[in-house]
Amino acid sequence: MEKFVYAFEEGNKDMVEVLGGKGANLAEMTVLGVPVPPGFTITTAACDVFYKDGKKLNDSILAEIDERLVKLESVMGQKLGDDSDPLLVSVRSGAAASMPGMMDTVLNLGLNDISVEGLAKKTGNERFAWDSYRRFIQMFGDVVMGVPHHDFEEALESVKNTKGVEFDTDLDVNDLKEVVSKYKDAIQSAKGTSFPQNPKEQLIMSVEAVFGSWNNDRAIIYRRINNISSLVGTAVNIQTMVFGNMGETSGTGVCFSRNPSTGENKFYGEYLMNAQGEDVVAGIRTPKSIETLEEQNAEVYKQIVEIKDNLEKHYKDMQDMEFTIQEGKLYFLQTRAGKRTGPAAVKMAVDMVDETLISKEEAVLRVDPEALNQLLHKQLDPVAKTEHDALTKGLPASPGAAVGEIVFNAIEARDQVQEGKTVILVRTETSPEDIEGMNAAVGILTSRGGMTSHAAVVARGMGKCCVAGCGDAKINEKEKSLVIGDNSFTEGDFITLDGATGEVFEGKIPVVEPTLSGDFGRLMEWADEFRTMKIRTNADTPHDAETAIKFGAEGIGLCRTEHMFFEGERIKAIREMILSKNVEERKLALNKLLPFQKADFVGLFNVMKGKPVTIRLLDPPLHEFLPKEEEEIKEISTTLNVSVEELNKKIEDLHEVNPMLGHRGCRLGLTYPEITEMQSRAIFEAAKETGAVPEIMVPLVGDVEEFKNQKAIIVGVAKELGVEAYKIGTMIEVPRGALTADTIAKEAEFFSFGTNDLTQMTLGFSRDDVGKFIPEYVEKGVYERDPFQALDQEGVGQLIFIAVEKGRQTRPDIKLGICGEHGGEPSSVEFCNKVGLNYVSCSPFRVPIAKLAAAQAALKQK
Amino acid sequence: MEKFVYAFEEGNKDMVEVLGGKGANLAEMTVLGVPVPPGFTITTAACDVFYKDGKKLNDSILAEIDERLVKLESVMGQKLGDDSDPLLVSVRSGAAASMPGMMDTVLNLGLNDISVEGLAKKTGNERFAWDSYRRFIQMFGDVVMGVPHHDFEEALESVKNTKGVEFDTDLDVNDLKEVVSKYKDAIQSAKGTSFPQNPKEQLIMSVEAVFGSWNNDRAIIYRRINNISSLVGTAVNIQTMVFGNMGETSGTGVCFSRNPSTGENKFYGEYLMNAQGEDVVAGIRTPKSIETLEEQNAEVYKQIVEIKDNLEKHYKDMQDMEFTIQEGKLYFLQTRAGKRTGPAAVKMAVDMVDETLISKEEAVLRVDPEALNQLLHKQLDPVAKTEHDALTKGLPASPGAAVGEIVFNAIEARDQVQEGKTVILVRTETSPEDIEGMNAAVGILTSRGGMTSHAAVVARGMGKCCVAGCGDAKINEKEKSLVIGDNSFTEGDFITLDGATGEVFEGKIPVVEPTLSGDFGRLMEWADEFRTMKIRTNADTPHDAETAIKFGAEGIGLCRTEHMFFEGERIKAIREMILSKNVEERKLALNKLLPFQKADFVGLFNVMKGKPVTIRLLDPPLHEFLPKEEEEIKEISTTLNVSVEELNKKIEDLHEVNPMLGHRGCRLGLTYPEITEMQSRAIFEAAKETGAVPEIMVPLVGDVEEFKNQKAIIVGVAKELGVEAYKIGTMIEVPRGALTADTIAKEAEFFSFGTNDLTQMTLGFSRDDVGKFIPEYVEKGVYERDPFQALDQEGVGQLIFIAVEKGRQTRPDIKLGICGEHGGEPSSVEFCNKVGLNYVSCSPFRVPIAKLAAAQAALKQK
Repeated sequence: MEKFVYAFEEGNKDMVEVLGGKGANLAEMTVLGVPVPPGFTITTAACDVFYKDGKKLNDSILAEIDERLVKLESVMGQKLGDDSDPLLVSVRSGAAASMPGMMDTVLNLGLNDISVEGLAKKTGNERFAWDSYRRFIQMFGDVVMGVPHHDFEEALESVKNTKGVEFDTDLDVNDLKEVVSKYKDAIQSAKGTSFPQNPKEQLIMSVEAVFGSWNNDRAIIYRRINNISSLVGTAVNIQTMVFGNMGETSGTGVCFSRNPSTGENKFYGEYLMNAQGEDVVAGIRTPKSIETLEEQNAEVYKQIVEIKDNLEKHYKDMQDMEFTIQEGKLYFLQTRAGKRTGPAAVKMAVDMVDETLISKEEAVLRVDPEALNQLLHKQLDPVAKTEHDALTKGLPASPGAAVGEIVFNAIEARDQVQEGKTVILVRTETSPEDIEGMNAAVGILTSRGGMTSHAAVVARGMGKCCVAGCGDAKINEKEKSLVIGDNSFTEGDFITLDGATGEVFEGKIPVVEPTLSGDFGRLMEWADEFRTMKIRTNADTPHDAETAIKFGAEGIGLCRTEHMFFEGERIKAIREMILSKNVEERKLALNKLLPFQKADFVGLFNVMKGKPVTIRLLDPPLHEFLPKEEEEIKEISTTLNVSVEELNKKIEDLHEVNPMLGHRGCRLGLTYPEITEMQSRAIFEAAKETGAVPEIMVPLVGDVEEFKNQKAIIVGVAKELGVEAYKIGTMIEVPRGALTADTIAKEAEFFSFGTNDLTQMTLGFSRDDVGKFIPEYVEKGVYERDPFQALDQEGVGQLIFIAVEKGRQTRPDIKLGICGEHGGEPSSVEFCNKVGLNYVSCSPFRVPIAKLAAAQAALKQK
Repeated sequence: MEKFVYAFEEGNKDMVEVLGGKGANLAEMTVLGVPVPPGFTITTAACDVFYKDGKKLNDSILAEIDERLVKLESVMGQKLGDDSDPLLVSVRSGAAASMPGMMDTVLNLGLNDISVEGLAKKTGNERFAWDSYRRFIQMFGDVVMGVPHHDFEEALESVKNTKGVEFDTDLDVNDLKEVVSKYKDAIQSAKGTSFPQNPKEQLIMSVEAVFGSWNNDRAIIYRRINNISSLVGTAVNIQTMVFGNMGETSGTGVCFSRNPSTGENKFYGEYLMNAQGEDVVAGIRTPKSIETLEEQNAEVYKQIVEIKDNLEKHYKDMQDMEFTIQEGKLYFLQTRAGKRTGPAAVKMAVDMVDETLISKEEAVLRVDPEALNQLLHKQLDPVAKTEHDALTKGLPASPGAAVGEIVFNAIEARDQVQEGKTVILVRTETSPEDIEGMNAAVGILTSRGGMTSHAAVVARGMGKCCVAGCGDAKINEKEKSLVIGDNSFTEGDFITLDGATGEVFEGKIPVVEPTLSGDFGRLMEWADEFRTMKIRTNADTPHDAETAIKFGAEGIGLCRTEHMFFEGERIKAIREMILSKNVEERKLALNKLLPFQKADFVGLFNVMKGKPVTIRLLDPPLHEFLPKEEEEIKEISTTLNVSVEELNKKIEDLHEVNPMLGHRGCRLGLTYPEITEMQSRAIFEAAKETGAVPEIMVPLVGDVEEFKNQKAIIVGVAKELGVEAYKIGTMIEVPRGALTADTIAKEAEFFSFGTNDLTQMTLGFSRDDVGKFIPEYVEKGVYERDPFQALDQEGVGQLIFIAVEKGRQTRPDIKLGICGEHGGEPSSVEFCNKVGLNYVSCSPFRVPIAKLAAAQAALKQK
């Protein structure tokens, strides 16, 4: 027969699936000889059976609980509900995956009108006993019986009012008795049934409530969002209560085996004497540093240090532990792997290798790649941050922290920075014209656009803090006003952005500078050793490329040529090209661009010194290069000697209802072959000059005929210039391109998955407009994460898989990569490794993250 | 050994693959005893070998040609190049598929400086001989040797100038000899080689040229566009020349075994005495009706009538024939199935069944479904039309013809029609607000938008002529001007539209009214007998539904509820809903809509009398319901008592960069569940009242969670109202929906493929913007046809196939249909039949076309 209840001494840490995380660790500690208050765990399988039996504990489970309880009573020499020395227990949920705060807990179980007196007698502390009792009734009423929290508040308030006191602590024993009585009434009137005096009944009801909380709404949504789907239920831990608030020889604390902020190998923790766990957390009294416990109780301190040393060695990871001292006796209530900052994670991993505690593989697997952001970007001072409430939250578009004066215009951003100011550029959305201002600003805030909007992509490229798509921020650029809720800001006002969370704050919050330690370098070396995928970067300028090379990029996976088109003379020439009335005029204008483009490529090739460089031909719709504002139109009309009317007509002509699905990508090259011609010429001339072997990428191909058309032009130019070493491939970013990859691979030498567009089209989500519903979608669990942030493996991933299969079918040695923004996101990188891509390409500051993620993927796949 | 050359008497009509269409029919006629000038055919396989051998005829083919030529000379008693009675031949291409005008032809081959004298002697007509010679040199020089046409023109002009005459016919023998001499010089100077005098050399060069023309650019593009990919090459026909221009006992003509315009079973044709084929076509002399030939030459006429009777009986189809009379002797040069109008096709097919010439199956297969448009819609008078040049051509968005005065505004269209005018609505693009004006106008012209733009879809629904996406038409609605090239129009000017071709004409062109004959009804009955798919209609109003029922629709496949939202009080209520500040206000506004929606559904259900009705929940983004023009915004501000500022803010808030990929479809229902709630209530209340079993369709589902969310709301309302008979399904229109169809089918009882959106997203083509490049794409052969017109089977079709497979895998009895605009397009209907859909749904006027196409698909698949 299946066993549904395990005493702590019967389990171990590997039984997480059966006992849940908390139960398994309590068992492990018990077996290791760590002093743990005795208890037992009801298994996750029992939870499953509970649901199968229609939300009831069946007789065989009840019998096992009974049997185990009797043994516990005998071990403790106490009895549930006893009138002189009652056994009190806690009932806590604990699933195999961490679901913090999602399920319910009941403490002090076993108290009733009789045992409360027993507890008073035993502890000699009547107030403590009655306070414990009223807390238990409240918790039980709330969690188990479903009485509104508010009913208890009201009862407590009424007693305090009658007495005329402000704090709970001002109530004496009689007052507390009054509270207990009112609490019982509250339950009676809310539920029509009385608070159960039978401790067994209390226990069974509590276990059922905890099992029931497994399927409450927030738990279901939490599991859906965190993709926890394989678990059958939660376990329940029944554990003898110990009290840290039984006087000055009692206490409670939390501690870490190493410093979780810095990673330093030094014991770190806090405690409070005569207190309960919640007091340490609540912050009403200031806890003391763990070292001072040595003076307080040298024996206990020594014991704690020994236990933490053993636990860390045993678990081979930094431990986060909770302990309680009850009248001088030490108990450990929990141990688990401790959360840590990015720098701490790196330092600990490297230190533990040096201490021969873990292997290099384990070290690489242990650091969350996203945590590296904290080593690469400024952070808000974590302590200072807790003192500020965020005004609102947008999308965490590019990590880092920024503090500066608001400006609403890119030109002014540039000018003010030249005057020595530090500014944050605040705009509804950004466009390529804003590049200079974005570059000058320390941070960017937009009210529209998603994780792959212009602002987000460019900011990530620059390694600059950006909060995008912040719908609550009402921005009026003309009137220079930013309104968030009831707060209004204008030019010159200070705000602070947290790019890692998307939070926006009023005023200035201190910032912590990042530092790259030697530990980071060593970890990266190990990552390089284990990973099998190459890491390239998305870089449009020699400067970006240099940054990426420093971070270890092995090539350029995406150079967006249009980003080169916005400076000075270039934008003029491109506008002339757009406004030209025939092919001859167009060629003339393109000829002016040729030397610029060529110089750009020479620059890139020189920086990359023979590493592969993939250059994408012109991609955006032409209207992106035309001005939008009236004033600028006038200005340009003068510069280009074209009437305002004609200019407006052209703008109107080029207007598109859905530009993302419009005249762009290779569709431009098909209708204006001279653009492809000019760009190919610039690339090949630069290649001749530098000896580079360029990879030319045709964007937005949905049919092989489009590709053939463009390839013919490119090959023609190569032949004319006598260039022989080059590759021609395509982006797979239109669903039809993926579906017909077998045909396209007949012609294309490489595929690069453009997952931004592929996501847009596969899901039908405009990256510029999803801000309106994606947050709600993620909240409701329709999508686990923003699909522009983490690759949608089920949908988009399926198309990638189809394209990889079909592509290799036709051309077994086809080179495959990804250059969408997902290329630097760990779960997406793991997917890329799984489907067998040759490389991922990401923005320069993401290169280390991609490397680490690639190494982890390779190790996991072994 | 493979045989590469067949004498006509060795082949037959079933050898089309080997001998090409022309060769097979010449052979068939020869075998039937029809007088055909003797000759032979070089096979398509020889063409294939020609290319494999590097564009050269190999020795074994040359030997076969030689052998066959000797036999021909002996049959004819003539010799190539003979100085007294030379054999002259034609060299014509002829592939297995019709490729009109795509490949080359050489006539009068065999003439040289010697045989021209022989021909003069033999015919006693020296001028005829030299004129034939100079025509041959010109044709040979152009087609075979690649001398620019212009060089020959120049030579001819110079002789005419010297002589001082205007027409070729004014040149005498000596002039023609001069022309021949100049032609030979032209060849020499253009090519550096002389015109070949050896007739054998002429022949071989001509055959090679015809084979070579198989792969000229226009032939390749023609094949790509017409999806002709399985052929290996063209055949070449060598045939003895006969001349209809050898005097008054000679002549030439074309004739049809039945009237190709009306279908009447009456001999129909034209001829000219003393003329060549090209004279009949050129229209310089007016040809005579075929009956008058009886007076001219009763014997020959009788012979022609006998032959045409035999040929029609033999081929069991109306024949289009060419004949030549040479000095009283009749020759047939060609026979093939004749092209016919829609009404003629129907009449002939039905007549031939009555004549027991063909079976009902054959009759159904013989009529091009698209040709039924000519029976259902007005047509431009075909004769009158030839007298007008189109100003420009847009997309043929909805068939029919329209003549009317231009108006630029929907309100004015309505008003002017009430005043008794006939108007054409001319707009950049239309929006749902224009419905009334569109309904009043006889035709619609837009400058933007594709085959599935608002104007196109609505016009097709109304059965109204529409030319959409006419980029050349510059429309300024404010200034009331329409400019096409150099032509300017304003309000009140007349224009004419041909919706079947997309042509736009100045002024008025006579129009032919459609008539539905009893033959049509019989053909439809037969189609119903053979088809296996059901035909439903897309109808939003009882009126549309009635029209469709008349055409035989078997249900409604798509009722777009939002089309009900634009009239009077409704649009006010929906605007109130959009402007509401919280859920309560929103529910209040929705409650106002409820009675309207319910009444709509009651109306629909009553018309449909128990036939299935699929109702799609609200689909378009909410901004479509808000006004765009300043004036209207002011007006609405007053009506709704909302400030203009607030209204503008809401419009700005709802603005989307790519609305097609934005907040629409079930995404609306997810964020505003009360909309789904109201619509479900209206549907179920109407169902209760009428006893209908509604099918509720959730639009734009990309993930099963979206569907579950909406289904829960719908089921909730059904339970509340005690309705039990209904189905809930989804549109598959987002690629991800197709890719995850297995999961979605767990919840959805039916799928309807929304191929408009599925095409947009799979190809990345905005239906509103493709006008800018789709025409060029089709012209360049990237796509065979506009993918919004004919389903892209390779790409979109692959997703449909995946969804069908996956859907049936989870739910074997899932009901599958299509409700995109492709549902009425024959090749798409055939595809739907092939993948096993249960029904197609199309606009009411397309129902007969869909029925016929479905019957053909079922017959072909047998």
